[in-house]
Amino acid sequence: MDNFSFYNPTRIIFGAGSVPRAGKEAKKIGGKALLVYGKNSIKTNGVYAQLTESLKKNGVEWLEHPGVKPNPALSHVREGVKKAKENGCGFIIAAGGGSVIDESKAIAAGANYEGDVWDFFCGKARISSALPLITVLTIPATGSEMNSGFVVTNEETKQKYSSGSPFSFPKVSILDPETTYSLPKEQTAYGASDAVCHLIEAYFSTKDSDNLVTDNFVHGIVKSVMKSTERIMKDPRDYNARAAMMWSATLALNGLQSLGYKKAEFTNHAIEHSLSAIYDMPHGLGLAVIMPAYFRHYVKKNGPERLYGFGREIFGITQSDPLKGAEETVKALENWLKGLGLKIKLSENGVPEKDFADIAANAMGLVNLWGMTITEKEVLEILKLAK
Amino acid sequence: MDNFSFYNPTRIIFGAGSVPRAGKEAKKIGGKALLVYGKNSIKTNGVYAQLTESLKKNGVEWLEHPGVKPNPALSHVREGVKKAKENGCGFIIAAGGGSVIDESKAIAAGANYEGDVWDFFCGKARISSALPLITVLTIPATGSEMNSGFVVTNEETKQKYSSGSPFSFPKVSILDPETTYSLPKEQTAYGASDAVCHLIEAYFSTKDSDNLVTDNFVHGIVKSVMKSTERIMKDPRDYNARAAMMWSATLALNGLQSLGYKKAEFTNHAIEHSLSAIYDMPHGLGLAVIMPAYFRHYVKKNGPERLYGFGREIFGITQSDPLKGAEETVKALENWLKGLGLKIKLSENGVPEKDFADIAANAMGLVNLWGMTITEKEVLEILKLAK
Repeated sequence: MDNFSFYNPTRIIFGAGSVPRAGKEAKKIGGKALLVYGKNSIKTNGVYAQLTESLKKNGVEWLEHPGVKPNPALSHVREGVKKAKENGCGFIIAAGGGSVIDESKAIAAGANYEGDVWDFFCGKARISSALPLITVLTIPATGSEMNSGFVVTNEETKQKYSSGSPFSFPKVSILDPETTYSLPKEQTAYGASDAVCHLIEAYFSTKDSDNLVTDNFVHGIVKSVMKSTERIMKDPRDYNARAAMMWSATLALNGLQSLGYKKAEFTNHAIEHSLSAIYDMPHGLGLAVIMPAYFRHYVKKNGPERLYGFGREIFGITQSDPLKGAEETVKALENWLKGLGLKIKLSENGVPEKDFADIAANAMGLVNLWGMTITEKEVLEILKLAK
Repeated sequence: MDNFSFYNPTRIIFGAGSVPRAGKEAKKIGGKALLVYGKNSIKTNGVYAQLTESLKKNGVEWLEHPGVKPNPALSHVREGVKKAKENGCGFIIAAGGGSVIDESKAIAAGANYEGDVWDFFCGKARISSALPLITVLTIPATGSEMNSGFVVTNEETKQKYSSGSPFSFPKVSILDPETTYSLPKEQTAYGASDAVCHLIEAYFSTKDSDNLVTDNFVHGIVKSVMKSTERIMKDPRDYNARAAMMWSATLALNGLQSLGYKKAEFTNHAIEHSLSAIYDMPHGLGLAVIMPAYFRHYVKKNGPERLYGFGREIFGITQSDPLKGAEETVKALENWLKGLGLKIKLSENGVPEKDFADIAANAMGLVNLWGMTITEKEVLEILKLAK
């Protein structure tokens, strides 16, 4: 087990009927809010009404910044920063999924900075303060509601880059599983794929498996995501399954999932970000395509033992030959993803083989920025395994 | 899954060689420290030298308050409060196990209060502020290094009572697994018993098992505690096992273990506190005696299903008859405890049956204070099952 630090001060308010608690939390912070959201979903699912009602009740003023895209765009972030600065907003309320929260974190940092907010993504500047942030989560997937990272896409340069800081943890995050009843099935599937991928990135970054605590933590939360999404697909109004999925997705990337591993390389994410940046592919779908290919490549490179061990724990696979056990694990993962209705090949998702070299070249931008060890050749191999 | 709130702002610094980081953390807080510890163990295992060296290096002044007992005594807490007040200490450093940290939390709260610190334990007053606290943990067991609760024994009234507040989270906790190399075997065993008990209290407070996330979390950390202590008993210098045990014991009571359960009744703890208060029995040993009896009583009252499910996950027990499965689970737990060298019957630990009525009466003080549902008759039944 490697040395680590852990710090996560986000307060979680979890459960049915908790959205109206936003007003009181906002009042505690004080000042005018910038309310950030996406398109219409928070208006049709009742979140907007509950939230603004609670703000009014608590005498909290707010200004709106709607229109966040699934892969939040830098231009829209810049608009939000401008609004927050010009109107003296003292804090941000994010109501939506991971994209809305990520854009809100970027605005929160940008509003306290004189330069251009993209400086925080390309390594030109470090975040040294940010406006307080309250989130009301409606899509369990990215874990952004309880961590300090965020991702924004620069449309001009086709770069989907990340940033983060200790100042970027949400102050309070409100998670009401009932807000997810109305999620389209594919959104639930994307979220599940994303959460599982968060859990496996650090776990498979190291061949050292002598980390009983985090290994067991990862196994438990992966199983919880898989079991709960299977139940949701059968009955979208299964409250306990919605709740388990929502809390699992948060725990999947709140820091606990990587503690004590020597490395935490986000290989699947680095490759997927290129698919999102170039094809505007939904993040969870891109990961569902990359993960099985990544695992097949992993086995070639590192041997089958760790993946087979994972398969034993997650899928109950038993095989005398570890190589067969590892391959069965990948197949079981593929079957789970397909069971969620996802198309798990690049060709099925409109990404032609002739583009692979460009995708790999694009991915290397992030690989280098994040200081990862995978080579362009290996990225290409993974893409080919996913064709 | 029930609604919940979660908040845990303690910063963890974990790993070999991390004790000297205390000085820098202390300097950040500023002012004079009250250094609280027990007897000689931190002097013989090198923690005292590393810690005070780092304080000197960072120009941090301190005053010492040694002599904390395994079940920290109210009189000694009062002395500490007096010292902190009279010498204008601005923060506390706790170096030791759960008792040292608990006493330090009590002093931290008492130092900012005009009345008697026992007011916080008997329900007479609420903690509204506390001095900042840095902990250097040397015995993995109580989880106090990452939660807001603490326990003190009033020697005059024989009451082992608890208190807590959002102001009582340690600011920083330093966990160096190497400091546990020199722990006597029985201390390791007590810690393991305590950690497992923390994990099962809320889990078995409810018959509702439809909480995939926390159930899986509990299973994973229980397995980690059991596996790592088995390894430690074979090889006390197995670093990864020491590390897994240390981090597991922290996670066993940092709040995550009870999220979403309808109730979190600390039945085993309420009964054990009476054993500690009356016989000065080590806490983990008392729990090792009570737990198997508690489970047998649990099955009579609630049926075997949940306990058998736990046994399937933890010990791999398979039985067509759930009742047999549940009994096998208790036996497997007993075997694990005995394997750690613990005597798991009251009679073996010098507690005669003629005292049972007095113990049960004493336990009801805590049962009522904590608002728990177990009756005095049931406590007596559990004691008889443990005789």
